[in-house]
Amino acid sequence: MTRAFSFSVKAQDGAARTGVIATQRGDIRTPAFMPVGTQATVKAMFVEDVAAAGADIILGNTYHLMLRPGAERIAKLGGLHSFMHWDKPILTDSGGYQVMSLAKLRKISEEGVAFQSHLDGARVVLRPNRAIEVQCLLGADIQMALDECTPFPASRAEARVSLDLSMRWAERSKAAFEAMSAPGQALFGIVQGSVYPDLREDSAKTLEGIGFPGYAVGGLAVGEGHEAMLQTLEATTPFLPEDKPRYLMGVGTPLDILEAVAQGIDMFDCVMPTRSGRHGQAFTWGGRLNLRNAQYAEDLSPLDPESACPAAQYSRAYLHHLVKAGEILGAMLVSYANVQFYQELMARARTAIAGGTFADFVEDVRRRYAGPENTA
Amino acid sequence: MTRAFSFSVKAQDGAARTGVIATQRGDIRTPAFMPVGTQATVKAMFVEDVAAAGADIILGNTYHLMLRPGAERIAKLGGLHSFMHWDKPILTDSGGYQVMSLAKLRKISEEGVAFQSHLDGARVVLRPNRAIEVQCLLGADIQMALDECTPFPASRAEARVSLDLSMRWAERSKAAFEAMSAPGQALFGIVQGSVYPDLREDSAKTLEGIGFPGYAVGGLAVGEGHEAMLQTLEATTPFLPEDKPRYLMGVGTPLDILEAVAQGIDMFDCVMPTRSGRHGQAFTWGGRLNLRNAQYAEDLSPLDPESACPAAQYSRAYLHHLVKAGEILGAMLVSYANVQFYQELMARARTAIAGGTFADFVEDVRRRYAGPENTA
Ligand SMILES: [Zn+2]
Ligand SMILES: [Zn+2]
Repeated sequence: MTRAFSFSVKAQDGAARTGVIATQRGDIRTPAFMPVGTQATVKAMFVEDVAAAGADIILGNTYHLMLRPGAERIAKLGGLHSFMHWDKPILTDSGGYQVMSLAKLRKISEEGVAFQSHLDGARVVLRPNRAIEVQCLLGADIQMALDECTPFPASRAEARVSLDLSMRWAERSKAAFEAMSAPGQALFGIVQGSVYPDLREDSAKTLEGIGFPGYAVGGLAVGEGHEAMLQTLEATTPFLPEDKPRYLMGVGTPLDILEAVAQGIDMFDCVMPTRSGRHGQAFTWGGRLNLRNAQYAEDLSPLDPESACPAAQYSRAYLHHLVKAGEILGAMLVSYANVQFYQELMARARTAIAGGTFADFVEDVRRRYAGPENTA
Repeated sequence: MTRAFSFSVKAQDGAARTGVIATQRGDIRTPAFMPVGTQATVKAMFVEDVAAAGADIILGNTYHLMLRPGAERIAKLGGLHSFMHWDKPILTDSGGYQVMSLAKLRKISEEGVAFQSHLDGARVVLRPNRAIEVQCLLGADIQMALDECTPFPASRAEARVSLDLSMRWAERSKAAFEAMSAPGQALFGIVQGSVYPDLREDSAKTLEGIGFPGYAVGGLAVGEGHEAMLQTLEATTPFLPEDKPRYLMGVGTPLDILEAVAQGIDMFDCVMPTRSGRHGQAFTWGGRLNLRNAQYAEDLSPLDPESACPAAQYSRAYLHHLVKAGEILGAMLVSYANVQFYQELMARARTAIAGGTFADFVEDVRRRYAGPENTA
């Protein structure tokens, strides 16, 4: 029998909480960080190492996968899990965010969003039900309702119009999901409302009225800045049901994540660990390191003596050499070390919440990330 | 006590032989294929997987490493083995071949070869004793005498002049090696002579007169073609001492290798498995596959059902997708599968020689590599 999707909070420390999302493909320990596997691969990583790093779930991008290799093709080939050899949970986004950031000639209407593929110029229309259909074809365990990620900045009036459209799409998404999804899968709604507290509250309540097994906070980390992000989160999280997982989309730095956990967020995703990894930027327990920096050319200390990651045991001198020489192994090792750092960060956060010491843990990480390299 | 360098032939089948080169860092089963680790990394591979694929030894490039990160720097950091976390044997070339193919403003004289670095234009002179010094700084277990890889085509007179210079350099290299090397290391001489049988014989005998624990055949696979390569090899190998390992530099395709093994060659290196891997060209027990080809887009069969390589278990459809999408994981998986294929090829060759069935094995591989994709 298929295991139902469920969420249980095991411990709370202030607003921060730790728990477990149970899915048909295994448990997700929360707070959880989901490495991004845009094109059916977490970039520059073997999938076994993504699991070894501690990830319980990864994210796939609907926009990319529907264009290449195509959702119907992936379904024919047995689904995304089998395609990429990852048998734990996968969350897919709705594709809406990337249509707006990557596609050409985008046009939003009540119906959905029409665009031209950035790959071959093909004309595509992404409607709420097609976004669900694609996610079902991929076989995603957690799916996202199609929304408009309100651009920043937006006037109050613009944010209202955008939000209302997203809420109508959320309803249509839920109907499509109920018609098409397989047992054990779950659909999350996405709160919008730009930086306006009353719009955020309104959006959260509207979504709760529709009813979802999880809620995401969208439209943040789009240029509003750290403080505005935290303030908007403060105006949103209290209106999200306590017994459902909360997911802050596209965030972020280690401190962004911990501060959002402090407000009661349970799930995160971000390309930062892998994108930084490909550019020689490492996240370590000693702070951020730019491995291109000449100061590491003869530094025999391991990348991160505090990390259990095999990749973090290589010397900074060796990684500096690989990065300077443009070697793929540099991207492989630093991506692995970064993804594992993010997982270790979440593991320590869970332990700290369970032990009632989460505030101390945040301060500890804040000190570690206060160095000169950590301003970027 | 340091283990001495030695070679023993265990079995012979015609001119083909299988044996073991014993070094201070472990045994090398012959015939052996050495994956190329140009810049202190076998491109796109974790070093553990190079070992898991079955490689007993890898090759490092003196030219690249002396320019970046620098031989003195690698020595200061503990040597090449420790730098790149590879504790089995390493063979380094002398740098001469790459000076001629990569550097700018090359000028050969009796003294050595002067050139400008392709990285920053720095003026460098590579003399026979400096080539040895660099290889000793790197800590190479098997080192190569500096030679001039005679360009192809070369007239008989040009080949003679070039060869004589290489032979004088071989003598100077040996003297430098005796002064600078550490116990357990070995220096190989390199036979030149272009495609002229009598020059090849002369070169082999001259080197034997100087005396080396191993002999390489250089100046082949430089454009002379398959048949000329085999004919030149036939005119060379009989003059190389039977009790010393023989190394054919820079070769080659699976069939090139097997045909050279049939003539008594023991060691090979080539960038083909890794370079092809980065371009989506796979070597399998079913022949060569171009994974970019649309015919694989929905092919669920594993890359190579006959291979034990974990990377070869992914579907051709998935690898096709990764290669088309330009994903690093495509390069990682196909490089790994190719390196392991080359190692499995050598392992089967060793078994066939020991069992007296080597000719059948070569015919078997010839049939496997007779398909339409194998003409490139
Ligand atoms: Zn991000
Ligand atoms: Zn080659």
